[in-house]
Amino acid sequence: MIVILKKDYDKEQFSGLVAWLEEKGLQVHTSVGENHTILGLIGDTSKLDIDLIAALDIVADVKRVQEPYKNANRKFHPMDTVVKVGNTQIGGGSLTLIAGPCSVESEEQVVAIARAVKASGATLLRGGAFKPRTSPYAFQGMQDEGIRLLKIAREETGLPIVSEVMDASQLPLFEDVDVIQVGARNMQNFNLLKELGKLRKPVLIKRGLSSTYEELLMSAEYVMAGGNENVILCERGIRTFETYTRNTLDIGAVPVLKKLTHLPIIIDPSHATGKAALVPPLAIAAAAAGADGLIIEVHNDPARALCDGPQSLRPEVFDSLAHKLIALHEFMDTMPQ
Amino acid sequence: MIVILKKDYDKEQFSGLVAWLEEKGLQVHTSVGENHTILGLIGDTSKLDIDLIAALDIVADVKRVQEPYKNANRKFHPMDTVVKVGNTQIGGGSLTLIAGPCSVESEEQVVAIARAVKASGATLLRGGAFKPRTSPYAFQGMQDEGIRLLKIAREETGLPIVSEVMDASQLPLFEDVDVIQVGARNMQNFNLLKELGKLRKPVLIKRGLSSTYEELLMSAEYVMAGGNENVILCERGIRTFETYTRNTLDIGAVPVLKKLTHLPIIIDPSHATGKAALVPPLAIAAAAAGADGLIIEVHNDPARALCDGPQSLRPEVFDSLAHKLIALHEFMDTMPQ
Amino acid sequence: MIVILKKDYDKEQFSGLVAWLEEKGLQVHTSVGENHTILGLIGDTSKLDIDLIAALDIVADVKRVQEPYKNANRKFHPMDTVVKVGNTQIGGGSLTLIAGPCSVESEEQVVAIARAVKASGATLLRGGAFKPRTSPYAFQGMQDEGIRLLKIAREETGLPIVSEVMDASQLPLFEDVDVIQVGARNMQNFNLLKELGKLRKPVLIKRGLSSTYEELLMSAEYVMAGGNENVILCERGIRTFETYTRNTLDIGAVPVLKKLTHLPIIIDPSHATGKAALVPPLAIAAAAAGADGLIIEVHNDPARALCDGPQSLRPEVFDSLAHKLIALHEFMDTMPQ
Amino acid sequence: MIVILKKDYDKEQFSGLVAWLEEKGLQVHTSVGENHTILGLIGDTSKLDIDLIAALDIVADVKRVQEPYKNANRKFHPMDTVVKVGNTQIGGGSLTLIAGPCSVESEEQVVAIARAVKASGATLLRGGAFKPRTSPYAFQGMQDEGIRLLKIAREETGLPIVSEVMDASQLPLFEDVDVIQVGARNMQNFNLLKELGKLRKPVLIKRGLSSTYEELLMSAEYVMAGGNENVILCERGIRTFETYTRNTLDIGAVPVLKKLTHLPIIIDPSHATGKAALVPPLAIAAAAAGADGLIIEVHNDPARALCDGPQSLRPEVFDSLAHKLIALHEFMDTMPQ
Repeated sequence: MIVILKKDYDKEQFSGLVAWLEEKGLQVHTSVGENHTILGLIGDTSKLDIDLIAALDIVADVKRVQEPYKNANRKFHPMDTVVKVGNTQIGGGSLTLIAGPCSVESEEQVVAIARAVKASGATLLRGGAFKPRTSPYAFQGMQDEGIRLLKIAREETGLPIVSEVMDASQLPLFEDVDVIQVGARNMQNFNLLKELGKLRKPVLIKRGLSSTYEELLMSAEYVMAGGNENVILCERGIRTFETYTRNTLDIGAVPVLKKLTHLPIIIDPSHATGKAALVPPLAIAAAAAGADGLIIEVHNDPARALCDGPQSLRPEVFDSLAHKLIALHEFMDTMPQ
Repeated sequence: MIVILKKDYDKEQFSGLVAWLEEKGLQVHTSVGENHTILGLIGDTSKLDIDLIAALDIVADVKRVQEPYKNANRKFHPMDTVVKVGNTQIGGGSLTLIAGPCSVESEEQVVAIARAVKASGATLLRGGAFKPRTSPYAFQGMQDEGIRLLKIAREETGLPIVSEVMDASQLPLFEDVDVIQVGARNMQNFNLLKELGKLRKPVLIKRGLSSTYEELLMSAEYVMAGGNENVILCERGIRTFETYTRNTLDIGAVPVLKKLTHLPIIIDPSHATGKAALVPPLAIAAAAAGADGLIIEVHNDPARALCDGPQSLRPEVFDSLAHKLIALHEFMDTMPQ
Repeated sequence: MIVILKKDYDKEQFSGLVAWLEEKGLQVHTSVGENHTILGLIGDTSKLDIDLIAALDIVADVKRVQEPYKNANRKFHPMDTVVKVGNTQIGGGSLTLIAGPCSVESEEQVVAIARAVKASGATLLRGGAFKPRTSPYAFQGMQDEGIRLLKIAREETGLPIVSEVMDASQLPLFEDVDVIQVGARNMQNFNLLKELGKLRKPVLIKRGLSSTYEELLMSAEYVMAGGNENVILCERGIRTFETYTRNTLDIGAVPVLKKLTHLPIIIDPSHATGKAALVPPLAIAAAAAGADGLIIEVHNDPARALCDGPQSLRPEVFDSLAHKLIALHEFMDTMPQ
Repeated sequence: MIVILKKDYDKEQFSGLVAWLEEKGLQVHTSVGENHTILGLIGDTSKLDIDLIAALDIVADVKRVQEPYKNANRKFHPMDTVVKVGNTQIGGGSLTLIAGPCSVESEEQVVAIARAVKASGATLLRGGAFKPRTSPYAFQGMQDEGIRLLKIAREETGLPIVSEVMDASQLPLFEDVDVIQVGARNMQNFNLLKELGKLRKPVLIKRGLSSTYEELLMSAEYVMAGGNENVILCERGIRTFETYTRNTLDIGAVPVLKKLTHLPIIIDPSHATGKAALVPPLAIAAAAAGADGLIIEVHNDPARALCDGPQSLRPEVFDSLAHKLIALHEFMDTMPQ
């Protein structure tokens, strides 16, 4: 960490700051210039509260050199984390296909889709029971009944299930859900993240609409700081000035996060674009970029889906896409690193 | 609402759609063009699920003409809403000053600040007990003890208190808090909003970092749909490409929201900029633009504040600012409308 | 185009508007609702000035249904445009590799790089002679001498050359340049675009840092409206809130633009990210998404490049990447559409 | 400037770098840590090419401490710059009102508006002769004829004139224009900026749609580096995710730029919002925030303006606004600093 002092700083406050930093186990190197004096802090600054230092009267600016996350940091954990879910796993070189309807609507619907996506190569079933909707007048999901139907679909197909929790109070309902999803709007629901840190089951965290890579990793760090290391990251589009697509999919998140963290990273092209026609090319691009998996909406009747219909693929389109993705992943494996 | 059909749409699906819309009490006017057929829907479309229609096979695009919110809409409620809090009120032409520390740190601190800001003209005391922090290693607030200390400060000064709730499960602790604040990161925590809709006490909703005006109003609509009309909106800076300030304060939100809604709108220049030196000019600008109030961080020792210190004003700076704001507000009242 | 009238509009102005629109050859369908009256305009509205109509006293809002570009629109030109450059071509199913140094620095440098990238499979040489630099104190390019050296490299290797023009006044120097590049900051330099419309040589237009797809297509339309149909589009990263990378590469631009236009679309992963390590995965992702080509910075000594060094690949890294890209493109061709 | 080295950097390259920096007159302070080695560069780094250093193999990151602009920097020029235009001046505590039509349309129009805005208190006349329009099919301005009409309006009223240049080749036409405006889309047209640096007449630079404060100041630096110190900065709205307004007006630019630079800063609320109803409250907010002036579109018939009509004020609305602005500015002057 680098601390830049104001030009005419108070010498006494300066000594106090240096003493306080040394007390925290840091070495302080001071460079005195004409316009600025710079402190270089050497040691573990990951748990230092940067705001506290920036608030000091004598400080002009503080710049981090070291990342503020430790458990999620690849520097301290060079090997890829592989998250086990039932008989399958996410990360470590495989390409996991997670598919299913945006919302669970009926037993018939979810079981039919689960069978279809399994046949196409998906290894996890996704399905929304609790739906975060911008409007209070829009369909809010089947809730606990939705969870029950997902479990039936799991029983019928053997696919582990992924579903979104909206609030810590709902967690008891998710006891038997295989992967708990934290939605983009909840990425910084810190109470929820802390509760998830107490569990030992996989948590899939979606990047917030305007969250930086570092903020996403800090949310993962909340869960990991609680002792739960089964975290999967998901890029699902960020909010930009472009309005043609619902959001802008940031495929660069794949190589960036691969560098910064050892956690698996998956891509959600369905929510990112909001348009079914864009899902296949972007799913393929994400797989080529090295994503550990894809989470894709599939509906047997997108035109009647109770939510987010326009971005869902029909099972036959997903089937064709899944075959391409699997072939592409095999092909990519044959390339020299 | 306007529905644009695809070029070669299925006539049977078209009849089905028209019948379904008419069943909802809407009139459907059809304009047939060479490249597009356009349906104009006449009637109350505010509760129509736009995604459902957009999902239909025959539909190319849907555009709203009417706003998707009704309770918060000035069109259906032309008079300003005035929210009563204790002996004071927010909205209706007054300029409410809400001030206090970012975090409650001790009884001594919060009482001293409360006395100071009251003397300067503030009519509500703000103070954080539960703090949403990006890092799990940063100070998370004094929690229930913080609420207790705020109540002491209220007893000492008579100022009603405003504090942020982070999760619906914390609501019992807020029973005796006068205004419940929903933070920017929680603006779309729909479960929390629904719970707040069941209360009858004032709720202050901060605009999310990348939330549109419409989304902010939809979050207000969640609370109001539950029957709680005591909603105060707060602009606190949006996330843009500019990194010099923490966020970019959107003062245009004041006249825009004044037009769209009857709810009071206040401005938080402290969190918007993250820099104390920018708070006074932007607070003055917001008051001049017609804001119903300001929420400003004040700390008796910003350099030792446990969070967000760099943006806090010292009491003497707040005092000077408050005098200017009150004088400016009186001056603005003398101007012809 | 849809025109939404204000509630209590003046009937005389309304008749005037309808007459004026009909004079322009449009049919006007009127839908009268309780809160809004809606006009559906049927016919060719691409050359109608939307601002003019929105400015009318009786108009509440105007929404386009038809795109405002015609020459660049795939609807009116369903077949892919293939742009011929020397013996090579861009578009129509091929994957064109354009490579070379950010700045031309010496004959030795540019010839060596040209030979290397040609050997790796590049079919065009890029090189900057005029460099748009944020700082007036940074290296501004070798200018006309740079163009001269590029031509030498072309003579030595046979590779056609691509270079950026910064101003219409420089065009005479580009007479013998094969593809003229318009930089992101110049995407809306309309005078330059008009001048390029008078030429018949290929123009490569980079998307502006905060330009929408539609604005990019309108810039292409400027060139095409002048009669020059040899336009190549280039996505090179957009400006978002994320600061880890220089910009955010929007790979979704590939399938979106493929749908909206018949022009070829290439991707520049070097400028998008500003980090050499991210170039290979994103180049691969772009090729998988269906891009018509890539433009990649290659430098034989990135650590001493006079500009933009950190994003340049060494020739041996480019060679490995080029082989992967060519293999991937062949593999993608074997997939069913 | 701070240079952060990679963990296992080459010692020889390190010595080379230090020698090179010292040759540039800088002192280099080295702090060696476990994970990072940090160099603190002391001295004038404003003209150092940051990209060159970042490109070095041994460098992990470079962070600026000192601003990269010098002529525009308040640190080296603490007093406000006052730009003289005819008998009036911009900056130094006054509030300059610049008003006029978006586009010059006829002698009658521009003279009538000039008379009206002068009577209301404006001291400069703005008017577009060359219009940057997104569509090649939209009205492009009256061009040289427009300049001629502006001069007639100046003769009739004595108001100095402000008009936008789109290209360096147009500069001869602007010889007798009092203030040359650089539009937002041209803020980084570096060739144009260099040409303007050779003049000694006032240049008004509009902030680009997605340009940072620093980039705006670097564009000013281009002009000033050429010897022309008569630069006026203008904030006119930035592009964000919000679509209700055309752009988002960043009033925070006023106090931020006041701190960073000595140049005058004016606000354009007309282009920022694109809606006439928002112009008065935001103009008032900007004046309250300390802006040196406002540039406002006024049209005697906004409903027939040939461009940008919806954002223009009628003369009587401008008159009422101007009176409020002048009264507010006087009132603000009575406040203690």
